[in-house]
Amino acid sequence: MGFIVKVTRASMRARSLVCVGLDTDTAKLPAGLSGSEGVLAFNHEIIRATSDLVCAYKPNSAFYEALGSGGMDALITTCRAIPSGIPIILDVKRGDIGSTAAKYAEAAYDLFGADAVTVNPYMGFDAVKPFLRPGKCVFVLCLTSNPSSGDFQFLDTGGAPLYERVARAAVEWAGEGEIGLVVGATQHEALRRIREIVGDMPLLIPGIGAQGGDLGLVLHGAGAAPGRTIVNSSREILYASAGKDYAEAARRRLLTLRDEMKRHL
Amino acid sequence: MGFIVKVTRASMRARSLVCVGLDTDTAKLPAGLSGSEGVLAFNHEIIRATSDLVCAYKPNSAFYEALGSGGMDALITTCRAIPSGIPIILDVKRGDIGSTAAKYAEAAYDLFGADAVTVNPYMGFDAVKPFLRPGKCVFVLCLTSNPSSGDFQFLDTGGAPLYERVARAAVEWAGEGEIGLVVGATQHEALRRIREIVGDMPLLIPGIGAQGGDLGLVLHGAGAAPGRTIVNSSREILYASAGKDYAEAARRRLLTLRDEMKRHL
Repeated sequence: MGFIVKVTRASMRARSLVCVGLDTDTAKLPAGLSGSEGVLAFNHEIIRATSDLVCAYKPNSAFYEALGSGGMDALITTCRAIPSGIPIILDVKRGDIGSTAAKYAEAAYDLFGADAVTVNPYMGFDAVKPFLRPGKCVFVLCLTSNPSSGDFQFLDTGGAPLYERVARAAVEWAGEGEIGLVVGATQHEALRRIREIVGDMPLLIPGIGAQGGDLGLVLHGAGAAPGRTIVNSSREILYASAGKDYAEAARRRLLTLRDEMKRHL
Repeated sequence: MGFIVKVTRASMRARSLVCVGLDTDTAKLPAGLSGSEGVLAFNHEIIRATSDLVCAYKPNSAFYEALGSGGMDALITTCRAIPSGIPIILDVKRGDIGSTAAKYAEAAYDLFGADAVTVNPYMGFDAVKPFLRPGKCVFVLCLTSNPSSGDFQFLDTGGAPLYERVARAAVEWAGEGEIGLVVGATQHEALRRIREIVGDMPLLIPGIGAQGGDLGLVLHGAGAAPGRTIVNSSREILYASAGKDYAEAARRRLLTLRDEMKRHL
Protein backbone atom coordinates (compact mmCIF):
# COMPACT_ATOMS: atom_id res chain seq x y z
CA MET A 1 0.00 0.00 0.00
CA GLY A 2 1.43 3.37 -1.01
CA PHE A 3 1.63 6.41 1.23
CA ILE A 4 -1.19 8.23 -0.54
CA VAL A 5 -3.62 5.33 -0.07
CA LYS A 6 -2.50 4.97 3.55
CA VAL A 7 -2.93 8.63 4.45
CA THR A 8 -6.27 8.82 2.62
CA ARG A 9 -7.63 5.83 4.55
CA ALA A 10 -6.34 7.21 7.85
CA SER A 11 -7.85 10.61 7.06
CA MET A 12 -11.26 9.10 6.23
CA ARG A 13 -11.22 6.77 9.24
CA ALA A 14 -10.43 9.63 11.64
CA ARG A 15 -12.61 12.10 9.69
CA SER A 16 -9.66 14.42 10.08
CA LEU A 17 -7.26 16.36 7.88
CA VAL A 18 -4.99 17.01 10.84
CA CYS A 19 -1.46 15.73 11.15
CA VAL A 20 0.09 16.16 14.58
CA GLY A 21 3.70 17.34 14.52
CA LEU A 22 5.82 15.63 17.16
CA ASP A 23 8.23 18.54 17.77
CA THR A 24 8.73 17.43 21.33
CA ASP A 25 10.97 19.88 23.15
CA THR A 26 12.60 18.87 26.45
CA ALA A 27 12.27 22.50 27.58
CA LYS A 28 8.48 22.25 27.34
CA LEU A 29 7.89 18.90 29.01
CA PRO A 30 5.54 18.92 32.00
CA ALA A 31 7.00 18.60 35.50
CA GLY A 32 8.34 15.12 36.22
CA LEU A 33 9.48 14.42 32.64
CA SER A 34 12.96 15.19 31.32
CA GLY A 35 15.56 14.21 28.73
CA SER A 36 15.01 11.71 25.94
CA GLU A 37 13.14 9.32 28.26
CA GLY A 38 10.76 12.15 29.10
CA VAL A 39 10.29 12.88 25.39
CA LEU A 40 9.45 9.26 24.74
CA ALA A 41 6.97 9.03 27.63
CA PHE A 42 5.35 12.30 26.50
CA ASN A 43 5.05 11.07 22.89
CA HIS A 44 3.52 7.77 24.00
CA GLU A 45 0.81 9.64 25.91
CA ILE A 46 0.17 12.09 23.07
CA ILE A 47 -0.15 9.24 20.56
CA ARG A 48 -2.43 7.25 22.87
CA ALA A 49 -4.69 10.30 23.33
CA THR A 50 -4.86 11.42 19.69
CA SER A 51 -4.38 8.50 17.30
CA ASP A 52 -8.08 8.13 16.45
CA LEU A 53 -8.23 11.81 15.44
CA VAL A 54 -5.28 12.23 13.07
CA CYS A 55 -4.45 11.39 9.46
CA ALA A 56 -0.69 11.27 10.12
CA TYR A 57 2.07 12.08 12.60
CA LYS A 58 5.03 14.25 11.69
CA PRO A 59 8.04 13.81 14.00
CA ASN A 60 10.51 16.68 13.60
CA SER A 61 14.01 15.21 13.47
CA ALA A 62 15.78 18.29 14.90
CA PHE A 63 14.26 17.86 18.35
CA TYR A 64 15.59 14.29 18.58
CA GLU A 65 19.00 14.98 17.01
CA ALA A 66 19.71 17.65 19.62
CA LEU A 67 19.47 14.88 22.26
CA GLY A 68 22.20 12.75 20.67
CA SER A 69 22.08 8.95 20.74
CA GLY A 70 19.29 8.89 23.33
CA GLY A 71 17.22 11.11 21.04
CA MET A 72 17.79 8.77 18.09
CA ASP A 73 16.52 5.86 20.16
CA ALA A 74 13.55 7.91 21.35
CA LEU A 75 12.67 8.71 17.73
CA ILE A 76 12.89 5.05 16.70
CA THR A 77 10.69 4.00 19.64
CA THR A 78 8.23 6.85 19.00
CA CYS A 79 7.82 5.77 15.39
CA ARG A 80 7.21 2.18 16.49
CA ALA A 81 4.52 3.38 18.91
CA ILE A 82 2.48 4.94 16.11
CA PRO A 83 -0.36 2.55 15.11
CA SER A 84 0.49 0.83 11.83
CA GLY A 85 -2.49 2.29 9.92
CA ILE A 86 -1.32 5.88 10.50
CA PRO A 87 1.47 7.12 8.23
CA ILE A 88 4.63 8.76 9.58
CA ILE A 89 5.92 11.84 7.77
CA LEU A 90 9.48 12.36 9.01
CA ASP A 91 10.23 16.07 8.87
CA VAL A 92 13.93 16.23 8.03
CA LYS A 93 14.03 18.72 5.11
CA ARG A 94 17.16 17.02 3.82
CA GLY A 95 18.72 18.32 0.64
CA ASP A 96 21.68 16.35 -0.66
CA ILE A 97 22.53 14.03 -3.50
CA GLY A 98 24.05 10.68 -4.45
CA SER A 99 25.40 8.42 -1.72
CA THR A 100 24.67 11.06 0.95
CA ALA A 101 20.98 11.28 0.06
CA ALA A 102 20.87 7.46 -0.09
CA LYS A 103 22.14 7.34 3.51
CA TYR A 104 19.53 9.89 4.62
CA ALA A 105 16.84 7.77 2.94
CA GLU A 106 18.20 4.68 4.69
CA ALA A 107 17.93 6.47 8.04
CA ALA A 108 14.39 7.73 7.39
CA TYR A 109 12.88 4.53 5.99
CA ASP A 110 14.94 1.61 7.31
CA LEU A 111 15.92 2.96 10.72
CA PHE A 112 12.93 5.10 11.68
CA GLY A 113 10.30 3.36 9.54
CA ALA A 114 8.92 6.58 8.03
CA ASP A 115 6.33 6.47 5.24
CA ALA A 116 7.28 9.89 3.89
CA VAL A 117 9.95 12.56 4.27
CA THR A 118 10.28 16.27 3.63
CA VAL A 119 13.00 17.27 1.15
CA ASN A 120 14.52 20.58 0.03
CA PRO A 121 14.48 21.11 -3.76
CA TYR A 122 17.44 23.52 -4.15
CA MET A 123 19.70 20.87 -5.73
CA GLY A 124 16.97 19.72 -8.14
CA PHE A 125 15.67 16.23 -8.86
CA ASP A 126 18.97 14.59 -7.82
CA ALA A 127 18.05 15.51 -4.24
CA VAL A 128 14.57 13.98 -4.53
CA LYS A 129 15.15 10.78 -6.49
CA PRO A 130 17.11 8.85 -3.80
CA PHE A 131 14.07 9.19 -1.51
CA LEU A 132 11.62 7.73 -4.04
CA ARG A 133 10.81 4.16 -3.13
CA PRO A 134 7.70 2.11 -3.79
CA GLY A 135 5.16 2.96 -1.08
CA LYS A 136 7.06 6.04 0.17
CA CYS A 137 6.28 9.69 -0.53
CA VAL A 138 8.57 12.71 -0.80
CA PHE A 139 7.15 16.07 0.29
CA VAL A 140 9.09 18.73 -1.55
CA LEU A 141 9.45 22.12 0.12
CA CYS A 142 7.62 24.54 -2.18
CA LEU A 143 6.50 27.69 -0.38
CA THR A 144 7.00 28.48 3.29
CA SER A 145 5.33 30.86 5.75
CA ASN A 146 8.40 32.46 7.34
CA PRO A 147 9.18 36.17 6.84
CA SER A 148 12.26 35.53 4.66
CA SER A 149 10.48 33.05 2.37
CA GLY A 150 10.50 35.94 -0.10
CA ASP A 151 14.32 36.05 -0.26
CA PHE A 152 14.23 33.46 -3.05
CA GLN A 153 10.87 31.62 -3.28
CA PHE A 154 9.04 34.63 -4.74
CA LEU A 155 11.79 35.67 -7.18
CA ASP A 156 10.41 36.05 -10.68
CA THR A 157 11.91 33.39 -12.94
CA GLY A 158 10.76 34.42 -16.39
CA GLY A 159 7.08 34.99 -15.69
CA ALA A 160 6.59 32.70 -12.71
CA PRO A 161 7.84 32.84 -9.13
CA LEU A 162 10.43 30.24 -8.12
CA TYR A 163 7.95 28.33 -5.94
CA GLU A 164 5.72 27.81 -8.99
CA ARG A 165 8.68 26.31 -10.88
CA VAL A 166 9.13 23.93 -7.97
CA ALA A 167 5.43 22.98 -8.09
CA ARG A 168 5.65 22.35 -11.85
CA ALA A 169 8.80 20.29 -11.44
CA ALA A 170 7.07 18.25 -8.72
CA VAL A 171 4.31 17.36 -11.18
CA GLU A 172 6.95 15.98 -13.55
CA TRP A 173 8.77 14.13 -10.78
CA ALA A 174 5.49 12.51 -9.71
CA GLY A 175 5.84 10.36 -12.82
CA GLU A 176 8.61 8.49 -10.99
CA GLY A 177 7.06 8.01 -7.56
CA GLU A 178 4.78 9.53 -4.93
CA ILE A 179 5.39 13.25 -4.51
CA GLY A 180 3.73 15.87 -2.34
CA LEU A 181 4.45 19.52 -1.59
CA VAL A 182 4.97 21.51 1.59
CA VAL A 183 3.11 24.83 1.46
CA GLY A 184 2.86 27.20 4.43
CA ALA A 185 -0.63 27.94 5.76
CA THR A 186 -0.29 31.73 5.54
CA GLN A 187 0.17 31.60 1.76
CA HIS A 188 -3.57 31.59 0.92
CA GLU A 189 -3.43 33.03 -2.57
CA ALA A 190 -0.52 30.83 -3.55
CA LEU A 191 -2.19 27.73 -2.10
CA ARG A 192 -5.01 28.10 -4.60
CA ARG A 193 -2.59 28.61 -7.49
CA ILE A 194 -0.46 25.63 -6.40
CA ARG A 195 -3.55 23.42 -6.13
CA GLU A 196 -4.44 24.36 -9.73
CA ILE A 197 -0.94 23.40 -10.90
CA VAL A 198 -0.56 20.11 -9.05
CA GLY A 199 -4.11 18.72 -9.28
CA ASP A 200 -4.74 16.19 -6.52
CA MET A 201 -1.14 15.92 -5.28
CA PRO A 202 -0.94 15.77 -1.46
CA LEU A 203 -0.20 19.13 0.16
CA LEU A 204 1.33 19.19 3.63
CA ILE A 205 0.37 22.51 5.21
CA PRO A 206 2.13 23.63 8.38
CA GLY A 207 1.56 26.96 10.07
CA ILE A 208 -2.04 27.11 11.26
CA GLY A 209 -2.67 28.31 14.80
CA ALA A 210 0.53 29.52 16.45
CA GLN A 211 2.06 30.59 13.14
CA GLY A 212 -0.99 32.55 12.00
CA GLY A 213 -2.57 30.52 9.16
CA ASP A 214 -6.34 30.93 8.79
CA LEU A 215 -8.03 27.54 8.58
CA GLY A 216 -10.95 28.66 6.41
CA LEU A 217 -8.68 30.29 3.84
CA VAL A 218 -6.37 27.26 3.85
CA LEU A 219 -9.22 24.87 3.05
CA HIS A 220 -10.62 27.28 0.50
CA GLY A 221 -7.28 27.32 -1.31
CA ALA A 222 -6.11 23.74 -0.93
CA GLY A 223 -9.45 21.92 -0.85
CA ALA A 224 -10.47 19.44 1.82
CA ALA A 225 -10.05 16.04 0.18
CA PRO A 226 -8.82 13.38 2.62
CA GLY A 227 -5.19 12.45 1.89
CA ARG A 228 -4.76 15.45 -0.41
CA THR A 229 -4.85 18.22 2.17
CA ILE A 230 -2.84 17.46 5.29
CA VAL A 231 -2.92 20.27 7.84
CA ASN A 232 -0.14 20.08 10.39
CA SER A 233 -0.38 21.37 13.93
CA SER A 234 2.43 20.89 16.42
CA ARG A 235 2.89 23.22 19.39
CA GLU A 236 -0.78 24.11 19.69
CA ILE A 237 -1.66 20.45 20.29
CA LEU A 238 1.43 19.22 22.16
CA TYR A 239 1.50 22.08 24.62
CA ALA A 240 -2.24 22.69 24.98
CA SER A 241 -1.61 22.28 28.70
CA ALA A 242 1.66 22.64 30.60
CA GLY A 243 0.35 20.42 33.38
CA LYS A 244 -0.09 16.71 33.96
CA ASP A 245 -3.29 16.74 31.86
CA TYR A 246 -1.29 17.47 28.67
CA ALA A 247 -2.53 14.39 26.79
CA GLU A 248 -6.18 15.04 27.51
CA ALA A 249 -5.71 18.74 26.72
CA ALA A 250 -4.09 17.76 23.40
CA ARG A 251 -7.09 15.59 22.60
CA ARG A 252 -9.54 18.38 23.44
CA ARG A 253 -7.60 20.87 21.30
CA LEU A 254 -7.57 18.39 18.42
CA LEU A 255 -11.33 17.82 18.68
CA THR A 256 -11.88 21.59 18.63
CA LEU A 257 -9.66 21.89 15.55
CA ARG A 258 -11.52 19.07 13.80
CA ASP A 259 -14.88 20.70 14.57
CA GLU A 260 -13.57 24.05 13.37
CA MET A 261 -12.59 22.38 10.09
CA LYS A 262 -16.03 20.85 9.67
CA ARG A 263 -17.59 24.30 10.00
CA HIS A 264 -15.52 25.45 7.03
CA LEU A 265 -16.62 22.61 4.75
CA MET B 1 38.97 32.84 17.72
CA GLY B 2 36.51 32.84 14.84
CA PHE B 3 36.19 30.07 12.27
CA ILE B 4 37.84 32.11 9.51
CA VAL B 5 40.93 32.82 11.61
CA LYS B 6 41.08 29.16 12.70
CA VAL B 7 40.80 27.72 9.19
CA THR B 8 43.29 30.27 7.82
CA ARG B 9 45.87 29.34 10.47
CA ALA B 10 45.30 25.61 9.93
CA SER B 11 45.62 26.10 6.16
CA MET B 12 48.89 28.02 6.50
CA ARG B 13 50.34 25.62 9.06
CA ALA B 14 49.60 22.58 6.86
CA ARG B 15 50.42 24.50 3.65
CA SER B 16 47.22 22.96 2.37
CA LEU B 17 43.87 24.07 0.98
CA VAL B 18 42.49 20.56 1.36
CA CYS B 19 39.62 19.64 3.66
CA VAL B 20 39.11 15.90 4.10
CA GLY B 21 35.48 14.82 4.03
CA LEU B 22 34.70 12.12 6.58
CA ASP B 23 31.95 10.38 4.58
CA THR B 24 32.82 7.10 6.20
CA ASP B 25 30.67 4.34 4.73
CA THR B 26 30.39 1.00 6.55
CA ALA B 27 30.11 -0.70 3.13
CA LYS B 28 33.60 0.54 2.24
CA LEU B 29 35.46 -0.27 5.44
CA PRO B 30 38.51 -2.53 5.07
CA ALA B 31 38.27 -6.14 6.21
CA GLY B 32 38.13 -6.49 9.98
CA LEU B 33 36.19 -3.26 10.57
CA SER B 34 32.39 -3.02 10.69
CA GLY B 35 29.49 -1.03 12.10
CA SER B 36 29.79 2.24 14.00
CA GLU B 37 32.79 0.96 15.97
CA GLY B 38 34.53 0.23 12.70
CA VAL B 39 33.69 3.72 11.44
CA LEU B 40 35.20 5.23 14.56
CA ALA B 41 38.41 3.16 14.38
CA PHE B 42 38.74 4.02 10.68
CA ASN B 43 38.26 7.75 11.34
CA HIS B 44 40.82 7.71 14.14
CA GLU B 45 43.42 6.24 11.80
CA ILE B 46 42.56 8.62 8.96
CA ILE B 47 42.82 11.63 11.28
CA ARG B 48 46.12 10.39 12.76
CA ALA B 49 47.59 9.93 9.26
CA THR B 50 46.37 13.21 7.72
CA SER B 51 45.94 15.91 10.38
CA ASP B 52 49.21 17.72 9.53
CA LEU B 53 48.12 18.00 5.88
CA VAL B 54 44.59 19.43 6.07
CA CYS B 55 42.99 22.82 6.71
CA ALA B 56 39.74 21.27 7.99
CA TYR B 57 37.72 18.07 8.33
CA LYS B 58 34.17 17.79 7.04
CA PRO B 59 32.19 14.92 8.60
CA ASN B 60 29.08 14.14 6.55
CA SER B 61 26.19 13.66 8.95
CA ALA B 62 24.19 11.27 6.72
CA PHE B 63 26.72 8.46 7.07
CA TYR B 64 26.46 8.60 10.87
CA GLU B 65 22.68 9.10 11.05
CA ALA B 66 22.11 5.93 9.02
CA LEU B 67 23.80 4.01 11.87
CA GLY B 68 21.35 5.25 14.51
CA SER B 69 22.42 5.94 18.08
CA GLY B 70 25.79 4.18 17.60
CA GLY B 71 26.46 6.45 14.64
CA MET B 72 25.66 9.56 16.68
CA ASP B 73 28.16 8.47 19.33
CA ALA B 74 30.75 7.69 16.63
CA LEU B 75 30.29 11.19 15.21
CA ILE B 76 30.70 12.82 18.63
CA THR B 77 33.86 10.79 19.32
CA THR B 78 35.23 11.46 15.83
CA CYS B 79 34.81 15.20 16.32
CA ARG B 80 36.59 14.99 19.67
CA ALA B 81 39.49 13.14 18.01
CA ILE B 82 40.16 16.02 15.63
CA PRO B 83 43.08 18.12 16.94
CA SER B 84 41.78 21.36 18.46
CA GLY B 85 43.57 23.63 15.97
CA ILE B 86 41.77 22.10 12.99
CA PRO B 87 38.22 23.31 12.36
CA ILE B 88 35.30 20.94 11.89
CA ILE B 89 32.81 21.74 9.13
CA LEU B 90 29.76 19.59 9.83
CA ASP B 91 28.10 18.81 6.51
CA VAL B 92 24.40 18.65 7.34
CA LYS B 93 22.84 20.92 4.69
CA ARG B 94 19.99 21.68 7.07
CA GLY B 95 17.30 24.06 5.91
CA ASP B 96 14.68 24.93 8.51
CA ILE B 97 13.62 27.88 10.66
CA GLY B 98 12.77 29.03 14.16
CA SER B 99 12.90 26.55 17.00
CA THR B 100 13.70 23.68 14.58
CA ALA B 101 16.79 25.41 13.21
CA ALA B 102 17.80 26.31 16.76
CA LYS B 103 17.71 22.60 17.67
CA TYR B 104 19.82 21.71 14.60
CA ALA B 105 22.33 24.39 15.64
CA GLU B 106 22.36 22.98 19.18
CA ALA B 107 23.15 19.52 17.79
CA ALA B 108 25.91 20.79 15.47
CA TYR B 109 27.68 23.10 17.89
CA ASP B 110 26.92 21.90 21.43
CA LEU B 111 26.67 18.15 20.84
CA PHE B 112 29.18 17.58 18.03
CA GLY B 113 31.41 20.60 18.67
CA ALA B 114 31.44 21.76 15.04
CA ASP B 115 33.04 25.08 14.07
CA ALA B 116 30.90 25.47 10.95
CA VAL B 117 27.88 23.93 9.24
CA THR B 118 26.46 23.74 5.74
CA VAL B 119 22.98 25.21 5.29
CA ASN B 120 20.42 25.26 2.47
CA PRO B 121 19.21 28.78 1.53
CA TYR B 122 15.77 27.94 0.06
CA MET B 123 13.87 29.38 3.07
CA GLY B 124 15.97 32.56 3.09
CA PHE B 125 17.83 34.24 5.93
CA ASP B 126 15.49 32.77 8.56
CA ALA B 127 17.16 29.40 7.84
CA VAL B 128 20.68 30.84 8.23
CA LYS B 129 20.36 33.17 11.21
CA PRO B 130 19.83 30.50 13.93
CA PHE B 131 23.21 29.01 12.98
CA LEU B 132 25.10 32.31 13.36
CA ARG B 133 27.00 32.34 16.62
CA PRO B 134 30.22 34.13 17.58
CA GLY B 135 33.13 32.02 16.32
CA LYS B 136 30.97 29.78 14.11
CA CYS B 137 30.57 29.94 10.33
CA VAL B 138 27.62 29.03 8.10
CA PHE B 139 28.42 27.72 4.62
CA VAL B 140 25.41 28.46 2.46
CA LEU B 141 24.73 26.15 -0.48
CA CYS B 142 25.14 28.32 -3.56
CA LEU B 143 25.91 26.30 -6.68
CA THR B 144 26.34 22.55 -6.86
CA SER B 145 28.01 20.17 -9.33
CA ASN B 146 25.24 17.59 -9.75
CA PRO B 147 23.44 17.16 -13.11
CA SER B 148 20.12 18.58 -11.85
CA SER B 149 21.71 21.68 -10.28
CA GLY B 150 20.25 23.45 -13.31
CA ASP B 151 16.65 22.63 -12.31
CA PHE B 152 16.55 25.80 -10.20
CA GLN B 153 20.05 27.21 -9.46
CA PHE B 154 20.56 28.47 -13.02
CA LEU B 155 17.05 29.90 -13.49
CA ASP B 156 17.19 33.49 -14.65
CA THR B 157 15.81 35.77 -11.96
CA GLY B 158 15.58 39.13 -13.69
CA GLY B 159 19.06 39.28 -15.21
CA ALA B 160 20.96 37.01 -12.83
CA PRO B 161 20.81 33.28 -12.18
CA LEU B 162 19.37 32.18 -8.83
CA TYR B 163 22.78 31.11 -7.49
CA GLU B 164 24.07 34.65 -8.01
CA ARG B 165 21.16 35.99 -5.92
CA VAL B 166 22.20 33.56 -3.20
CA ALA B 167 25.81 34.79 -3.40
CA ARG B 168 24.66 38.42 -3.16
CA ALA B 169 22.38 37.62 -0.24
CA ALA B 170 25.29 35.87 1.50
CA VAL B 171 27.35 39.06 1.26
CA GLU B 172 24.57 40.90 3.08
CA TRP B 173 24.16 38.18 5.68
CA ALA B 174 27.89 38.29 6.37
CA GLY B 175 27.21 41.58 8.15
CA GLU B 176 25.65 39.51 10.95
CA GLY B 177 28.19 36.71 11.33
CA GLU B 178 30.70 34.51 9.54
CA ILE B 179 29.35 33.26 6.23
CA GLY B 180 30.85 31.09 3.50
CA LEU B 181 29.48 29.52 0.34
CA VAL B 182 29.45 25.99 -1.04
CA VAL B 183 30.29 25.94 -4.76
CA GLY B 184 30.81 22.74 -6.75
CA ALA B 185 34.23 22.21 -8.31
CA THR B 186 32.90 21.61 -11.83
CA GLN B 187 31.41 25.12 -12.01
CA HIS B 188 34.63 26.84 -13.17
CA GLU B 189 33.09 29.83 -14.91
CA ALA B 190 30.67 30.46 -12.09
CA LEU B 191 33.42 30.11 -9.47
CA ARG B 192 35.20 33.10 -10.95
CA ARG B 193 31.98 35.13 -11.04
CA ILE B 194 31.08 34.15 -7.47
CA ARG B 195 34.56 35.10 -6.25
CA GLU B 196 34.08 38.54 -7.80
CA ILE B 197 30.76 38.97 -6.00
CA VAL B 198 31.79 37.74 -2.55
CA GLY B 199 35.34 39.10 -2.30
CA ASP B 200 37.36 37.13 0.23
CA MET B 201 34.47 35.12 1.68
CA PRO B 202 35.44 31.46 2.32
CA LEU B 203 34.38 29.10 -0.47
CA LEU B 204 33.99 25.42 0.33
CA ILE B 205 34.50 23.53 -2.91
CA PRO B 206 33.54 19.85 -3.10
CA GLY B 207 33.72 17.76 -6.24
CA ILE B 208 37.35 17.52 -7.31
CA GLY B 209 38.67 14.08 -8.24
CA ALA B 210 35.92 11.46 -8.26
CA GLN B 211 33.26 14.04 -9.19
CA GLY B 212 35.26 15.50 -12.09
CA GLY B 213 36.37 18.97 -10.97
CA ASP B 214 39.66 20.18 -12.50
CA LEU B 215 41.99 21.47 -9.78
CA GLY B 216 43.76 24.02 -11.97
CA LEU B 217 40.50 25.59 -13.12
CA VAL B 218 39.12 25.58 -9.58
CA LEU B 219 42.11 27.50 -8.23
CA HIS B 220 42.08 29.82 -11.22
CA GLY B 221 38.44 30.67 -10.49
CA ALA B 222 38.38 30.73 -6.70
CA GLY B 223 41.93 31.82 -5.94
CA ALA B 224 44.28 30.04 -3.58
CA ALA B 225 44.26 32.14 -0.41
CA PRO B 226 44.50 30.03 2.76
CA GLY B 227 41.19 29.98 4.60
CA ARG B 228 39.35 31.50 1.62
CA THR B 229 39.50 28.53 -0.73
CA ILE B 230 38.76 25.21 0.94
CA VAL B 231 38.87 22.28 -1.46
CA ASN B 232 37.10 19.19 -0.17
CA SER B 233 38.06 15.65 -1.06
CA SER B 234 36.32 12.67 0.51
CA ARG B 235 36.19 9.28 -1.22
CA GLU B 236 39.44 9.76 -3.12
CA ILE B 237 41.33 10.12 0.17
CA LEU B 238 39.34 7.80 2.46
CA TYR B 239 39.30 4.89 0.04
CA ALA B 240 42.70 5.37 -1.60
CA SER B 241 43.32 1.75 -0.60
CA ALA B 242 40.75 -0.93 0.24
CA GLY B 243 43.35 -2.82 2.27
CA LYS B 244 44.85 -2.55 5.73
CA ASP B 245 47.18 0.23 4.53
CA TYR B 246 44.20 2.62 4.06
CA ALA B 247 45.55 5.30 6.40
CA GLU B 248 49.00 5.42 4.78
CA ALA B 249 47.40 5.34 1.32
CA ALA B 250 45.17 8.27 2.35
CA ARG B 251 48.25 10.19 3.45
CA ARG B 252 50.05 9.46 0.18
CA ARG B 253 47.02 10.54 -1.85
CA LEU B 254 46.74 13.74 0.17
CA LEU B 255 50.45 14.53 -0.38
CA THR B 256 49.98 14.00 -4.12
CA LEU B 257 46.96 16.32 -4.10
CA ARG B 258 48.86 18.99 -2.17
CA ASP B 259 51.78 18.77 -4.63
CA GLU B 260 49.39 18.95 -7.55
CA MET B 261 47.93 22.14 -6.06
CA LYS B 262 51.39 23.69 -5.66
CA ARG B 263 52.05 23.11 -9.36
CA HIS B 264 48.97 25.19 -10.19
CA LEU B 265 50.03 28.17 -8.08
